[in-house]
Amino acid sequence: MKTQIAASAFALIASGAYGEALERTIPDAVGRVSPALEAYSRDDLLGSVWAGPQLSLRDRALVTFATLVTRHESDNLATHIELALDAGVTPAELSETVTHLAFYTGWGNAVAAARAMAPIFEARGIAAESLPPADPALLPLDRNAEDARENFVRGTFGDVSMGVVDTTRELLFRDLWLRPDLAPRDRSMVTVAALIATGQSEQMTFHLNRAMDNGLTQEEAGAMLSHLAFYAGWPKVFSALPVAKQVFESRSN
Amino acid sequence: MKTQIAASAFALIASGAYGEALERTIPDAVGRVSPALEAYSRDDLLGSVWAGPQLSLRDRALVTFATLVTRHESDNLATHIELALDAGVTPAELSETVTHLAFYTGWGNAVAAARAMAPIFEARGIAAESLPPADPALLPLDRNAEDARENFVRGTFGDVSMGVVDTTRELLFRDLWLRPDLAPRDRSMVTVAALIATGQSEQMTFHLNRAMDNGLTQEEAGAMLSHLAFYAGWPKVFSALPVAKQVFESRSN
Amino acid sequence: MKTQIAASAFALIASGAYGEALERTIPDAVGRVSPALEAYSRDDLLGSVWAGPQLSLRDRALVTFATLVTRHESDNLATHIELALDAGVTPAELSETVTHLAFYTGWGNAVAAARAMAPIFEARGIAAESLPPADPALLPLDRNAEDARENFVRGTFGDVSMGVVDTTRELLFRDLWLRPDLAPRDRSMVTVAALIATGQSEQMTFHLNRAMDNGLTQEEAGAMLSHLAFYAGWPKVFSALPVAKQVFESRSN
Repeated sequence: MKTQIAASAFALIASGAYGEALERTIPDAVGRVSPALEAYSRDDLLGSVWAGPQLSLRDRALVTFATLVTRHESDNLATHIELALDAGVTPAELSETVTHLAFYTGWGNAVAAARAMAPIFEARGIAAESLPPADPALLPLDRNAEDARENFVRGTFGDVSMGVVDTTRELLFRDLWLRPDLAPRDRSMVTVAALIATGQSEQMTFHLNRAMDNGLTQEEAGAMLSHLAFYAGWPKVFSALPVAKQVFESRSN
Repeated sequence: MKTQIAASAFALIASGAYGEALERTIPDAVGRVSPALEAYSRDDLLGSVWAGPQLSLRDRALVTFATLVTRHESDNLATHIELALDAGVTPAELSETVTHLAFYTGWGNAVAAARAMAPIFEARGIAAESLPPADPALLPLDRNAEDARENFVRGTFGDVSMGVVDTTRELLFRDLWLRPDLAPRDRSMVTVAALIATGQSEQMTFHLNRAMDNGLTQEEAGAMLSHLAFYAGWPKVFSALPVAKQVFESRSN
Repeated sequence: MKTQIAASAFALIASGAYGEALERTIPDAVGRVSPALEAYSRDDLLGSVWAGPQLSLRDRALVTFATLVTRHESDNLATHIELALDAGVTPAELSETVTHLAFYTGWGNAVAAARAMAPIFEARGIAAESLPPADPALLPLDRNAEDARENFVRGTFGDVSMGVVDTTRELLFRDLWLRPDLAPRDRSMVTVAALIATGQSEQMTFHLNRAMDNGLTQEEAGAMLSHLAFYAGWPKVFSALPVAKQVFESRSN
């Protein structure tokens, strides 16, 4: 393990407000069944990966949370919700992320996240009234891009399932994506995290391009892949790498 | 959100016996962490999607249950088991669905479903003796179709794993699929739901064709895709759409 | 069900020390909601599949455990940890497997496994001090093979994410895979099990070849596919079969 790097990096991290929250994501049980896993966790994952400058700690906490929600890791959500809040993800953003992931990873994942989040919000005095409302003023729609998307999807799949075509337009692209309390870049980031976590590389081209259109840099995307290797597993990231490569190359021409 | 449609549709639904059961699938925690998710749940998912006439409520409850079992959503199973029973899925059908999904999605999913179901069956006075027995009289086998399937699989994979070839024949196609207490159409429907939920589009062609041979209509299949977008996540359904399109087109020629 | 075969096979199994542990993986709830699933479990899965001579019981217990960890089946882990220990997987091997799967299937899966394992290790008097240390003397590196792998990955993905390239080399192939307390063959076996369980056939060619280089026989690999059909679901195994076929054929030429 890269202990020499890790020692100082972890000291740096632990000095931050979220240092303790980060440590609490690794319960004592880990060290009791595997001293090695505890050392990898402390020295490499928490001490080195989380300290990487290519992606902010706030972004790391957000995509990690998104990955855990996607994987239905109900038993690991609480510590990562606390971490996200301590790392600067606002309650409004966390609330929107859960709603976003309901659509992108399945309702039951969002319900499980809500169950884990409700007591934490209550303990921190975050009331539902202070969270984004059901019907906020929406961000402006890019009508040309949306018309192109809609026409393609309707033309291709309209005779397969008009229900999918209609709800995709009405609920996702003319509503959810335009809700103002989670930036389009962040919506894209958690969507891409969800696609990596489920191994759905075939859906990634559209959303990684959209993420970069929305402001995610190539360096951040690369760091996200590296970060998520730990939380979604190496093979998931190796299946995503060729798609990312193709997207990066197509945009640099 | 399509609140205008939703208001009346939800009133309609809520008047049914399963209205309350449907509402209970969205716990209070949802509204406490996201007023928006609660509104989407009430107005769009429960109030509009579930009221769609292209697929019966009983079928919606059955494929939703199958999707949750497939995703190992242990924490969400109880409310959906109650909902399925209230929506007209019989205890025998639910029992057979769990057994079917043991084979199609892994034993541990069925074990988790059994843990969630046992107390509900007990509370409703459903005894094991009233459920389908281990060795019922089987439905007749379509020997030609099964011989063709078996010959193809044995010829292709016999030298890779005869164990898979043998158990597929003996346990699945000459036993499980012929058990009479879940209609072949329903077995196909929960199998397709499981394949959508796991993103295994590559296995869908065979089973969607079989589903339609077993009586699932194209309209029902399309509605199932639209319904499952909410429970398996949009990207899973977008990966399934091209396969469904191909199957629909190949059958219309 | 193949009851005639099963009766004697199960008697044989039940006579072993792990017979009871095997039975405890099927809780009573199963029989209460599906007499058929209980019969399939007892007669076919426990009584026939687990008794198959092509793969040792110890190996079956290890790959089953790996599959459940990969699927985040927190509620089913305890009985399978007990079973693995009773079937001859050592505490050191189980500890290393959890650490290995942290990298190959995501940290949260390993954390959940640690939570399930800690009380069992404590009850059996297995102290952390007796487990493999964080920094053991490593197995020798096959520098040529590793250089070839590293050069390929760096050349292909270095400009996408150097973080992935670096951690893959430093943490996985120059560290984790060289830890001595889980044999390379066993590391490969649990890695392949994880890839089958997540349906990542596209990553299987490399790891199945590596498994066979590390000593897994073709017969064992075939039996593993047959075994995992029950624990990962039939469709996952049918997606893995073409890859296995291709690997087997490429090695026999």
